[in-house]
Amino acid sequence: MRCKRGSEFSVFRTPGLLAAGEVPTWFNSMLGGRTTLVVTTPTVHRLYGTQLVSALQHVGARVDVLVLECRETEKTLEQVERVCSRACDLGLRRDDIVVALGGGVCSDIVTVAASLIRRSVSHVRVPTTLVGQVDAGVGIKGAVNFGHKKSFLGVFHPPTAVAIDSVALATLPAPAIRDGIAEILKIALVHDASLFAGLEAFAPQLVAQRFQSETGDELIEQAIVAMLEELETNAYEHQTYRRLVDLGHTFGPRLEEAQGFGVTHGTTVAVDIALSTAIGVELGLLRPNDQRRILDVIRACGLPVWSQALTLALCHRAIVDAERHRGGALNLIVPCGIGSACVVPDAGSVAGVLHHALRRARAATVERMELATA
Amino acid sequence: MRCKRGSEFSVFRTPGLLAAGEVPTWFNSMLGGRTTLVVTTPTVHRLYGTQLVSALQHVGARVDVLVLECRETEKTLEQVERVCSRACDLGLRRDDIVVALGGGVCSDIVTVAASLIRRSVSHVRVPTTLVGQVDAGVGIKGAVNFGHKKSFLGVFHPPTAVAIDSVALATLPAPAIRDGIAEILKIALVHDASLFAGLEAFAPQLVAQRFQSETGDELIEQAIVAMLEELETNAYEHQTYRRLVDLGHTFGPRLEEAQGFGVTHGTTVAVDIALSTAIGVELGLLRPNDQRRILDVIRACGLPVWSQALTLALCHRAIVDAERHRGGALNLIVPCGIGSACVVPDAGSVAGVLHHALRRARAATVERMELATA
Repeated sequence: MRCKRGSEFSVFRTPGLLAAGEVPTWFNSMLGGRTTLVVTTPTVHRLYGTQLVSALQHVGARVDVLVLECRETEKTLEQVERVCSRACDLGLRRDDIVVALGGGVCSDIVTVAASLIRRSVSHVRVPTTLVGQVDAGVGIKGAVNFGHKKSFLGVFHPPTAVAIDSVALATLPAPAIRDGIAEILKIALVHDASLFAGLEAFAPQLVAQRFQSETGDELIEQAIVAMLEELETNAYEHQTYRRLVDLGHTFGPRLEEAQGFGVTHGTTVAVDIALSTAIGVELGLLRPNDQRRILDVIRACGLPVWSQALTLALCHRAIVDAERHRGGALNLIVPCGIGSACVVPDAGSVAGVLHHALRRARAATVERMELATA
Repeated sequence: MRCKRGSEFSVFRTPGLLAAGEVPTWFNSMLGGRTTLVVTTPTVHRLYGTQLVSALQHVGARVDVLVLECRETEKTLEQVERVCSRACDLGLRRDDIVVALGGGVCSDIVTVAASLIRRSVSHVRVPTTLVGQVDAGVGIKGAVNFGHKKSFLGVFHPPTAVAIDSVALATLPAPAIRDGIAEILKIALVHDASLFAGLEAFAPQLVAQRFQSETGDELIEQAIVAMLEELETNAYEHQTYRRLVDLGHTFGPRLEEAQGFGVTHGTTVAVDIALSTAIGVELGLLRPNDQRRILDVIRACGLPVWSQALTLALCHRAIVDAERHRGGALNLIVPCGIGSACVVPDAGSVAGVLHHALRRARAATVERMELATA
C-alpha cells in the first residue's frame, strides 16, 4: 500500500494587522466564516489580541480566544490538552481553524493540538517573536517536552498560512531579539551570504531598533525565504539526517542544560556556532579569516562566542546525543565559507580536533579581552 | 513552501508467528537489532506474548513489553501517554519500533503514540481481532476518544508493516468475529462482488469455525486487498469526503450511543448497511432482489438487519453529524449493486425517502418473523 500526502503554505507579510487590525486580503478566503480558536499568551493577548480578533471578525469568523501561559516549562502535553478541550467544547470541525498568536512555545503547542484535533485541522500562525518569525513559525514542526526530554513528543504539521507583522518585535525584550538574530545568523551562514553581509552591516542597529525599519523588514523576509528554501528539500526529515539548519544546535542543548534555565536559546546557538566554526578551521574546511568575520558578527549581534560551561566532556556528551538523534551518525554542520556549510558525518574526525577547536574558540575570547584591556 | 511526504507499507501473512513464534523473513530487515516496545493487552499477552517476543528476540531485537487494558472506554490520551512514557524511559530512538499486538483499541493507542514519539517512530501492527486484520489494522489512522467525543484526537500514521496470523481469531468470542465480518461485508459490498459471493457461500461456517480454514484465510486476504485498494486512492482523506468505506458508518454511531455500551460495533454497522440498502432501493439505485441478497448475507453472518432504536429522529440526528464530519455534505454511501456503491451527496434526497426506507428496512424483519412463525 502506498500513501502520499502533500501540502503547501504561504508566509505573508501583514503590516498593520497587529497594530491596527488591518485585514489582509487572504483572511477572507482562508478564515472567512469559520470557527476560529485563537490561542495566545497573556502579554500578547493584552497587546495584540483585540486587533487580531477584530480582523478575524471582519471576515465573518466566529472567534474564541484561549489564553495560555506559554513559557518553555509549560510546553507540555497538558497545554496541548487544554487547546483540544476548548476545540472540543467549541465543536471545532475539520474545516475550522486554530490560530497561534504568540512565540515559539505557543506555536509548538498549537501545532501539536491542531495536528491531533479530528486527525488534523488547519492552523494559522501569527508569530510575535523574532525566532517565531524567522525560524520556528515558518517550519512545519511542533513538539512538547515530555518526561524531562525536550521536544520528545511532536508532529510534522504544516500551517495553512503564516502572518508576519514585525511590529510585534517592537515590544520584545533584547534577549528575545538576540535569540532570533542567532537563528538568522545560522540560516545566513549555511544558505545566504548576502543575508550574512546584511548582519555584518546592520546587526547593532537591528538589535537596538528591534527590526523596526525597512532594513529590518527586508532582512526578516530574506531570512524567511532562506529558511523555507532550506526546509523545502527535506521538510519531514525523512530524506536525510544531514540538515544544514542544524548548525548551532549540536552542543547547544547540553550547554543549555549545563547552564540552567537562566540562559537563552540564542546564546547557546551562538556559542555552538562559534565552536562549529573553530572545528571547521581545525578540519581545514574554513579559512581563519572567515572565522574572524563570523565571530565579529556574533559579537555585533550582542551574542557570546564562548561559555565557561563548554568543556571537552560536555562536547563529547553532546556528540553522543546528536548521533542518537541523527540516525547513528554525528552529521555535524560546519561552516565552510560564508553562506555555505558542510556536513561532517563522522564523530571520530570531530572528536580528533575537538581539543584544539575548543582552544581556538576560547582563544578568540581571550584575544578579544586582551584587546579590550590593552 | 511545498512539502510532500509519502510512505509505503506491506501487509504480510505470518502463519506460525503467534502459535509457535516462527520468524517471518521480513522481521530481520525491519526489526532486527532494534529496540522494540511491544504494547499489548492482558489476554493477548497471556496467549501470544511469549511467541512474539521470542520471534523478535530471534532477530536480535531488544524487547520490552507494556501491557495495557485496551477496552473502548480506555481509548484515551492517558493510555497514549503511558506508551510514550515507557518509550521515553527506554530511550526509544527515531529508528526504533513500537509494536501493537492486539485489537483495534490497542492499534489505535499505539498508532497515536508512535506518531507523536520523536515526531514519529515506526510501528508494526500484529492485529489479533478480525476487525483489526481486515479493517482498522490495515488502515493508516489512529485515534482516541476525548471529552465524550469518539475519536476526537487522532493521526494519520501508516504502519511500517502489518502481520496477519489468523490463528489469533481461534480464541475470539463470537461477537468479535461478527464485528469483523460486518466490515468484510462492507468492503465486499462497495468493492468486491466475489468477496460478497464468498460470504454468501460460507458465512455461517466462517463464523462457527472462526475463520480457521483455508477459505477463511483466503477471504481475509481478499478483504484486506479490497480494503487497501479502496484506501489507497484517498488515504489521508484529503482528496475527498466521499469514501465508499464509510458504508455502514453513518447511522451506526448514533445507534451505538442510543443502545448504550452493550451493543457491538458490528451489529450497528449491519443495521446501518441494511438501512442504507433500503435507502438505495427507495432512491431507485438498487434492485429489490439485491436488497434481499444483502439482507440474507447479513443474517447468515449472525448479524441483525434492524434495531428498535433506529427511529426517524435518530436518523435525522445522524445525518446532521455526518454532514459535519464530511465537509458539509452528507455523502451517504449506498449500495447500487453487489460490489459497487454510489455516493448520495445531498441530505435532502435521503431525508425525502427516509420514512419509506425505514418502513422497508423494518418490513424485511417482520416478513422474516412471519416466515419463521408461519
